Amino acid sequence: MNYEQIIKSTIKSNNSKIILLVLDGVGDIRSPKFKDKTPLEYAHTPNLDKLAKESVVGRLHPVLPGITPGSGPGHVGLFGYDPMNLTIGRGVLEAVGIGFQLKSYDVAARCNFATMNENGIITDRRAGRIPTELTIELCNTLKSIKEIDGVEIIIKPGKGHRFVTVFRSKDKEIGSYINDTDPLTEGKAPLPAHGKNPPSQFLANVINKFIKEGYALIKDKHPANAFLMRGIASKPKLPTMREKYLLESAAIATYPMYRGIASLLGMTLLPAPDSIEGLFETYVSNKQKYDFFFIHVKGTDQAGEDGDFESKVSCIEKVDKALPIILENKPDVLAITGDHSSPCAMRSHSWHPIPLLIHGQFSGRDDVKFFNENACNNGGLGFFESKYLMGLLLANAKRLDKFGA
Amino acid sequence: MNYEQIIKSTIKSNNSKIILLVLDGVGDIRSPKFKDKTPLEYAHTPNLDKLAKESVVGRLHPVLPGITPGSGPGHVGLFGYDPMNLTIGRGVLEAVGIGFQLKSYDVAARCNFATMNENGIITDRRAGRIPTELTIELCNTLKSIKEIDGVEIIIKPGKGHRFVTVFRSKDKEIGSYINDTDPLTEGKAPLPAHGKNPPSQFLANVINKFIKEGYALIKDKHPANAFLMRGIASKPKLPTMREKYLLESAAIATYPMYRGIASLLGMTLLPAPDSIEGLFETYVSNKQKYDFFFIHVKGTDQAGEDGDFESKVSCIEKVDKALPIILENKPDVLAITGDHSSPCAMRSHSWHPIPLLIHGQFSGRDDVKFFNENACNNGGLGFFESKYLMGLLLANAKRLDKFGA
Repeated sequence: MNYEQIIKSTIKSNNSKIILLVLDGVGDIRSPKFKDKTPLEYAHTPNLDKLAKESVVGRLHPVLPGITPGSGPGHVGLFGYDPMNLTIGRGVLEAVGIGFQLKSYDVAARCNFATMNENGIITDRRAGRIPTELTIELCNTLKSIKEIDGVEIIIKPGKGHRFVTVFRSKDKEIGSYINDTDPLTEGKAPLPAHGKNPPSQFLANVINKFIKEGYALIKDKHPANAFLMRGIASKPKLPTMREKYLLESAAIATYPMYRGIASLLGMTLLPAPDSIEGLFETYVSNKQKYDFFFIHVKGTDQAGEDGDFESKVSCIEKVDKALPIILENKPDVLAITGDHSSPCAMRSHSWHPIPLLIHGQFSGRDDVKFFNENACNNGGLGFFESKYLMGLLLANAKRLDKFGA
Repeated sequence: MNYEQIIKSTIKSNNSKIILLVLDGVGDIRSPKFKDKTPLEYAHTPNLDKLAKESVVGRLHPVLPGITPGSGPGHVGLFGYDPMNLTIGRGVLEAVGIGFQLKSYDVAARCNFATMNENGIITDRRAGRIPTELTIELCNTLKSIKEIDGVEIIIKPGKGHRFVTVFRSKDKEIGSYINDTDPLTEGKAPLPAHGKNPPSQFLANVINKFIKEGYALIKDKHPANAFLMRGIASKPKLPTMREKYLLESAAIATYPMYRGIASLLGMTLLPAPDSIEGLFETYVSNKQKYDFFFIHVKGTDQAGEDGDFESKVSCIEKVDKALPIILENKPDVLAITGDHSSPCAMRSHSWHPIPLLIHGQFSGRDDVKFFNENACNNGGLGFFESKYLMGLLLANAKRLDKFGA
C-alpha cells in the first residue's frame, strides 16, 4: 500500500474546518544585504508570535532538498498531490489562470502574437509587446475560425501580447504530444506542429490548418501579423479534493494562476478582494459552507522576486495585523506556510525549506516561540515534504482513521 | 539497490547485544487539561535524564507524517519491516495473540459466538457477551469437527465470546481472499463465505460446511447458537529477524498481541513477569543467550488510551526506577522509544512523532539533557521513519559494513 492508498483507506468525514494559509514564497534566508535577518525574523508580528507559542512548527521541503519548484509543483504538493509525478502543462495553467473552465479532453496552448517578415521569418516573438486592447481586437478577428475538422477552436485573450487557444473535440480523440510552434529565437520561421502519436498527429494537423487560416486573417496587422504556440497540453486527469479527501474546498486567492490550480483540484473559487483583511473576511463569511479553505497571499513572493526586503516585511506585518480576523473565527485546524521560499537576496524561487505552523486542539505545542525559518528548525514537526502536509492536517482534524490493526 | 538490499549486503554478525525498549504509546502532546506538559516532561525521571545526557535522541514517525498506526504497523516498523507494505491480517494477529503457533499456509479467522433466531437472523452479534468459561465449553463441542475436505480445523477459545479458528491444509492450496461472514449488524443473516480466487473459493466451501456443521452442533445452546467469522487471513510470508539481520532475537512482552507479532518475526518468547523490574531482570538472566532483546511495556499505552495522565506518568516513573537493572548490565546498544503516540488528551493512538533515545559507545551525544518529546526535537538523530531504526541500531552495534567502495 502506498501513502495515497493509506489516506484513501483511512479518510472519513466530519464537521471540522481547516484553513491552509499560504504566504507565497514566504521562506527566506539571512543575508548581510538585508539586516542579516529573514523578513519573518525582522517583521514585527505579535499575533504570529503568540500563535507560535500555542502551536507546533516545523519546515517543509516543497519537493526534496535542493529542488526549487515553480508555483505549480509548489502548490500541488501542499494539497497532497505528488509534485514529482503531477505535471500541469503550461497551456493548461495559462487557460485556467485566465479563468477558463477546461473540460476533460480539452487541449490548451499558450499563444503569443509575433511579427513575421515577408519571407515567413519571425522578427519579433512578442510583436513589440502590443497592448492588451489590441490583443483583444486581434483575438476577435481570429474567433471567426470556429471549427476545424470537427474540433472547436476557442480563443481567449490574456495580458499584453498573450492569448490562449483551447481545442475541444466533439467526437475524435485528440492528443497533446505536440511540439511548440515557437522557434524560441528570432530569425527563424515558426515550426510546423507534429504529433507523436495518432491522436496528437490529428490535432497537429488541425493546429497547422488553424495557423494557416489565422495568419491569413491577420496578415495586414503588422506588427502582430503572426502567432506562436507553446506548452500544448491536455487537462490532467486529477482526483478532486472531494474525491481524495471528502472535503468541500474553497479557494480564496486573487491571482489567476492560483485560482486556476485550485479550480483544477475542484475547489470552489470564492471572490477574493485585494486586501489581506478582505481575504480573511471572505473565509469568515463562508465558514459554514466549506470544510477546507485555501487562502493565498501573493505579496510575499512578489517582494522576494523583486528583492524588496521592506515590502516583504510589510506584507508579513499586514498578514499579522489581519490574523485576529481568522483567530476570532478559529477553524479546528489552522496551518500557515508557503509554497516555496523566494529569498530577497536571490530574487527568485528557491529550494530552502519553508516554515510551517499548525494550530489545533490536537496539534500539540513545542518550545518554539516565534514563526520564522530558524525558530521552526527546532519545532515538533521536524522537516518533511510538502506532499505529506494534507495528511497531517486531516489527522489534526480527526478526519483520518487508524491505519492497520 | 533499495534499503533492504543495502542492509542485506552489509549485514554481519558479532557478539554485540542490542536492547530495543518499547514504551507502548509513550509519545504525547502538551494539553491544558493535563498540566500543559507531556507525561514524559512531567514525570520525575532522574535515570532517563542522566541517560539522555550521555545519548543521542530524535523522533520517529511510525509510518509517515499524519498517519496513525495500529499496534501492528507500529511494531513491524520498529523491527525494520515496511509498515506500509506489510499487513498482518486480523485473524492472524488474533491467533498468534492467544499463543497459537501458526504454520506457513495456515489461514486464521476471528470468530464470535452470536445469537440467531428461528429464521436464521442474527439478533445479537456477541451472544450476550457470554463468559470465557462458556466459550471454552462451546469450543470443545465444535472441536468434534476435526477435518473437512482434507483441511484440518483447529479451534482455540479466546476471551469472552471470542475464539479463533485455524484452517490447515494437508495438501491442497488454500487462500484467504474471503469475505467476513459477520453481517456487521444485527437483524441480518450471516453471510456465506465467497473466495475471490480458486484456492480461496476452495477454503470458502470448507468454511461454509464448517459453519453448517458447527451451527447444528450448538443449535440448542441459546444465546450462543451461532458464530460469525471476520478477518480471515493467511500467515504472512516474512523473513525472520535471523534471516534479515543475522540476529538471535528474544521478546520480553506480557501482552499476547506483542508476543504474537514477535513470534511471527521468529523471536523467541521469553517468560515475561508483570512488573517492569521483572521484564528487565528477564533480560539480565538471558543476556548471554540472545543478540537482540525486544522489551515491551504496555502501561504507557493503556494509560494514554484511558486518558489517565497520572497513570502514564507513574508508569514512566516505574520504568525510570527500574532502568538501573538494565544499565548495570548494559547492552552495547540501548534504544528507548515507542511504537506510536497515545496522547492522554486524545485517548487513542495518534500520528505524533515518538521520542527516541540511542545509547552506545558509538551513538554520539547531543546537547539534549532530557528524554521527552520536545527535548528530542533538537536531538542529533532528527526525525525519521521507524522503519530505519533497526538499521541504525545494527550500525551502532557495528553489525553493518560500509556500503560501496
